[in-house]
Amino acid sequence: MLCELCEPKAPTVYRDDRLSVILVDDAAYPGFCRVIWNDHVKEMSDLANEDRLYINEAVYQVELALVGVMKPFKVNLASLGNMVPHLHWHLIPRYEDDAQFPSPVWAPAVRTTDKPVLAARRALLPQLAADIARRLEKK
Amino acid sequence: MLCELCEPKAPTVYRDDRLSVILVDDAAYPGFCRVIWNDHVKEMSDLANEDRLYINEAVYQVELALVGVMKPFKVNLASLGNMVPHLHWHLIPRYEDDAQFPSPVWAPAVRTTDKPVLAARRALLPQLAADIARRLEKK
Repeated sequence: MLCELCEPKAPTVYRDDRLSVILVDDAAYPGFCRVIWNDHVKEMSDLANEDRLYINEAVYQVELALVGVMKPFKVNLASLGNMVPHLHWHLIPRYEDDAQFPSPVWAPAVRTTDKPVLAARRALLPQLAADIARRLEKK
Repeated sequence: MLCELCEPKAPTVYRDDRLSVILVDDAAYPGFCRVIWNDHVKEMSDLANEDRLYINEAVYQVELALVGVMKPFKVNLASLGNMVPHLHWHLIPRYEDDAQFPSPVWAPAVRTTDKPVLAARRALLPQLAADIARRLEKK
């Protein structure tokens, strides 16, 4: 079965034979990343043990890159997949001035983050992409 | 620092020296579980490697219990912690007739699930609790 995540359209920061990492193009959330399992698998528990540990490690390395480069107040991690049941992890750097803080990003927005603040975060994205690639390539 | 998760109030399904599992009392989401790290730690990346693998494994075992007992359409996994920055994982069995489906449970509700359906799911909770305890005790 093919779905929209079987062929991700966003530029890939990292890709190997098992998974891909993309930067999500979300104006309110610079640094929002997705770790996408390449094969069309639904749940973490559908993965072979070795593959599950592999994606857990990749999610962890992307979290470390987010913490190091984006310096968020908190990192949010989520594997939902109700609309697109193809295993993927959302990793979202959260700040106290972001659009939904302290609610999850799927709650209604409660504010607009200042444009210069968003621009400063967006300016870190090349460094974030490089750090993610570096971490995953040396795994 | 003590927070509300440093001393969880809900009945504990499982507890060891590192983590606890509770069933969340959410009328719309029978089977909603939380895996809570006992110590007041903020991020997955703040854990020692061994501890991170330990909680990943516990989350996986609870997911297996949810899949086996609750038979959801999809399992949702999330570590957010913006309001209570004490490491915990939400595990939510999702169904196509649940209050927010296919949106995340933090989005506005779009329907009310039929009461007999919710009651049937609620009736599975003792079995879910027993399965979680069995899986984690034999780890």
